[in-house]
Amino acid sequence: MNALVVSIGNELLNGKTTNSNATFIGQQLADLGVALKQIVTIRDEAARIEDALTLAMRDYDTVIVTGGLGPTHDDITRKTVAAFLDTELVLNEGALARIEALFRERGREMPPINRQQAMVPASAGLLDNPLGTAPGLHFDEKDTQIFLLPGVPREMKEMMVRSVIPLLRQRLNHSPPQIHLYRTTGIVESKLYEICQSHFEKFPAYEIAFLPKFTGVDIRVAERDSDESYAEFQEGLLEIAGKYIYTQSDEEIEAVVGRLLTEKGMTLTAAESCTGGLISHRMTNIPGSSAYYLGGINAYSNEVKMNMLGVSADALKAHGAVSEAVAGEMAAGVRERLGSDIAVSTTGIAGPGGATETKPVGLVYVGFATADSVSARRFTFGRDRLLNKDWSAQAAIELLRRYLLRL
Amino acid sequence: MNALVVSIGNELLNGKTTNSNATFIGQQLADLGVALKQIVTIRDEAARIEDALTLAMRDYDTVIVTGGLGPTHDDITRKTVAAFLDTELVLNEGALARIEALFRERGREMPPINRQQAMVPASAGLLDNPLGTAPGLHFDEKDTQIFLLPGVPREMKEMMVRSVIPLLRQRLNHSPPQIHLYRTTGIVESKLYEICQSHFEKFPAYEIAFLPKFTGVDIRVAERDSDESYAEFQEGLLEIAGKYIYTQSDEEIEAVVGRLLTEKGMTLTAAESCTGGLISHRMTNIPGSSAYYLGGINAYSNEVKMNMLGVSADALKAHGAVSEAVAGEMAAGVRERLGSDIAVSTTGIAGPGGATETKPVGLVYVGFATADSVSARRFTFGRDRLLNKDWSAQAAIELLRRYLLRL
Repeated sequence: MNALVVSIGNELLNGKTTNSNATFIGQQLADLGVALKQIVTIRDEAARIEDALTLAMRDYDTVIVTGGLGPTHDDITRKTVAAFLDTELVLNEGALARIEALFRERGREMPPINRQQAMVPASAGLLDNPLGTAPGLHFDEKDTQIFLLPGVPREMKEMMVRSVIPLLRQRLNHSPPQIHLYRTTGIVESKLYEICQSHFEKFPAYEIAFLPKFTGVDIRVAERDSDESYAEFQEGLLEIAGKYIYTQSDEEIEAVVGRLLTEKGMTLTAAESCTGGLISHRMTNIPGSSAYYLGGINAYSNEVKMNMLGVSADALKAHGAVSEAVAGEMAAGVRERLGSDIAVSTTGIAGPGGATETKPVGLVYVGFATADSVSARRFTFGRDRLLNKDWSAQAAIELLRRYLLRL
Repeated sequence: MNALVVSIGNELLNGKTTNSNATFIGQQLADLGVALKQIVTIRDEAARIEDALTLAMRDYDTVIVTGGLGPTHDDITRKTVAAFLDTELVLNEGALARIEALFRERGREMPPINRQQAMVPASAGLLDNPLGTAPGLHFDEKDTQIFLLPGVPREMKEMMVRSVIPLLRQRLNHSPPQIHLYRTTGIVESKLYEICQSHFEKFPAYEIAFLPKFTGVDIRVAERDSDESYAEFQEGLLEIAGKYIYTQSDEEIEAVVGRLLTEKGMTLTAAESCTGGLISHRMTNIPGSSAYYLGGINAYSNEVKMNMLGVSADALKAHGAVSEAVAGEMAAGVRERLGSDIAVSTTGIAGPGGATETKPVGLVYVGFATADSVSARRFTFGRDRLLNKDWSAQAAIELLRRYLLRL
């Protein structure tokens, strides 16, 4: 099976949007063992779409087209594909009812223009779009199967996983490789590679990819039929890099921490200065987090630190707001006042302003409090405000994870 | 001038790397007023590269190829292009000296394999690579100019800006267009299009793109030399859609609110339940936000709502935590306790759990408090937890903006 992705959208060509959809699709196909051979990115122009479809029908057996399924005049994918495949656009009552229901749920009336999205080529199969108005479409055309998906990443991803991958899997004439994931944090990519390299070389049949994110590196291992022992591979990797690996599944580190808190029957609160609510935001991204996450105080000003967290004027005066002492008092204060078992805190200089002679941008303290102890750890991150917030929140959540593992 | 980008590299197709190089080039070209019509992303395979070059020579006058200029056996771009253009690879002494010098600077001897990178097609002009070993190449071939650049983003970007853009600028037969941006929120793309459509039709020379984001739609207007009056276009658009437009520059809505707060000399706090810290996180993403953002309380549990915000047990009992009454008390409570001029609050059912017979997932109240008044507004969003958090935070920040504009 060989695949082509056609990404449609002016925003992908004028520098406004990076084509992360194609990356996601490439990874999903790789997981299935299907080779994505080419990505063609074009504007919402009929002639370009026809050229891409001609290429698709000539050289490929699987084609995934994204974008141009919206309701406006720019969105010509449905119309152009129908004309190219010599089929007509007809109103699909089921799709229309779905779109109307979606607007009703959101307490709004459907604008007449959205009716366009229920006009679908007569020869198409429909793919459910649980997150949006545009249904996906599926054609079997001679030796080529064509999928049309919306360009909105959340909708596209959901539909890839729910509809396209299962349909492709049915037609595979090989068994897909087994994919294993190890998600790490707290170690840079080059260092991680250095410590793992000689281990990986013992397992040449495994295809190993490093996927760096802002807050850590994922190791993706594709295992095909081979004589190599996966148990041995896994054991060795855990021995070398286990302390950086927070999960072997797809979950986020905040979900891992949530699971550990639930297992230990413990509650958490947070006092945030430089992260400004990001830790709390991430912890509450997890469904059910209200069972263990009580809340937090985002203490940006010194007054809020003193009045709401009980940070002492002495500590602020002697050490400054960005200090080990204040980080500790913040964590102890939020723990006591909100009544949780454990608490974390952050205080730092996110930048670009606020640096002093002894405290550079990127200096951050993460505090930690339990019933028995209060402590703080010093970090020096970089010069970018948003990255400093991300890294600080990640460091605090990772500290929590390591503490809970030791219990 | 119309342009094609050819991105070469297996990592762009197997989901490992997002093609941010093409985004960067697209933006650089758009700023010049050159239309990037297509991006073709292919593997390091000679047949694919030849296909792309055939397309380039047939349809385009400007082609920028990135990737495959490294020294290893995978890197076949130089060789393949030379063969396609019927020219020979010859050793360029200047390029060799540059590479040897670079290794010397880094205190290393040049590995013999890097000599490959000084083998360049006889008909090529060289483009200096100040950050790496592979020189860029430039061909004038019939009606098409071809640029070959390395795939390493740092090197590619530097060479685009230093060498390619100046060469393209020399050949431009137009002045670059003026780009105008209008960022909107609180209106869906289809509705926005509906109300603007007839106005846009009066200005056919303007190229208008709708760029939907999670929290709103950006309208991007490219204005070329024309007889149409931009002042008239702008005035008309503001009349039709002005109340949804929060900025005509590149800034985020939280920066707009920050600017308004600074202008009015007012301070802000937030009490967050369903958004769990996201409003606070977004407000503190803006450099200098400590001047007007004092902090917030993320009150996830009822106990925190009562103890830290002074929400009354009566209101919780009579109306439940997700109610107009509690939203109002939360805003009033955080305002008073943290001592700000104004405050916002959120309480809602983000989902997937927590719905009751009368309160569905997606029901959210946004509260608002000043010295003179306390109020709350009801919203019904969707079924997705993370989107509900995003939309609730956006609604709260937009309420703030509208309030500050009226002052």
